[in-house]
Amino acid sequence: MTPYRQWLATALAEARTGLAEGGLPIGAALYTADGTLLGRGRNRRVQDGDPSMHAETAAFRAAGRQRTYRGTTMVTTLSPCWYCSGLVRQFGISRVVIGEARTFHGGHDWLAEHGVEVVLLDDAECAAMMGAFVAEHPGLWHEDIGD
Amino acid sequence: MTPYRQWLATALAEARTGLAEGGLPIGAALYTADGTLLGRGRNRRVQDGDPSMHAETAAFRAAGRQRTYRGTTMVTTLSPCWYCSGLVRQFGISRVVIGEARTFHGGHDWLAEHGVEVVLLDDAECAAMMGAFVAEHPGLWHEDIGD
Repeated sequence: MTPYRQWLATALAEARTGLAEGGLPIGAALYTADGTLLGRGRNRRVQDGDPSMHAETAAFRAAGRQRTYRGTTMVTTLSPCWYCSGLVRQFGISRVVIGEARTFHGGHDWLAEHGVEVVLLDDAECAAMMGAFVAEHPGLWHEDIGD
Repeated sequence: MTPYRQWLATALAEARTGLAEGGLPIGAALYTADGTLLGRGRNRRVQDGDPSMHAETAAFRAAGRQRTYRGTTMVTTLSPCWYCSGLVRQFGISRVVIGEARTFHGGHDWLAEHGVEVVLLDDAECAAMMGAFVAEHPGLWHEDIGD
């Protein structure tokens, strides 16, 4: 059995914490090939007034300086936007595991074209949480993706 | 006369400060269409141990939350990597002014293909500073771009 669902649970826990804080419920985590957690984080736009901290960049930041990202997996509750897709491509993160892409379809096809392994879990809880948030706070969501 | 050289001077000042701090000498600034400075910053990998703070993301962060980036210009001393190019595309930053692309050719052609106005100044001072840094600290440079 792949550990993807277990890793997604880490990202989902971050998303739930973000929601409880009044923020965007998007979480992410960065794992090594052997399943070691390097970093985890959540979108911090509302909490810190920081537009640069998307879930993926927060997890990447939390992992600190790394010599290589070869073999690592970024797991995220939502399809990565261009900003976060660019992060994955630039740093050579090997795999992206995505909770859902129903609410938002970011750059993961582009990542797949450029050799990143993309796993889309289509998780119902991720989709329900994000879908409800976007319905309730459309302005915040559009701000977060620069729409 | 366009203000691009004047805006580049802001980015270059950030890069010089970064170099003096022992960091990667890459600076950036975000300006509105009417020339108001929204944010400025520099690469902070070494200074803060933070791999997520490239010059462009630092300038974007310093600008705080914005409702739209329409009409804004990101000026940077060095061609933006995929991470920073993704930032520009996602948030609809209208223009990128680049000091130099001799040392590193990032994603600016991709940005131009997707409607971002790209201005390459080919500035000798930017190229000399970055070229010298890469020659002296190749490991740090490769770490910064995930090579």
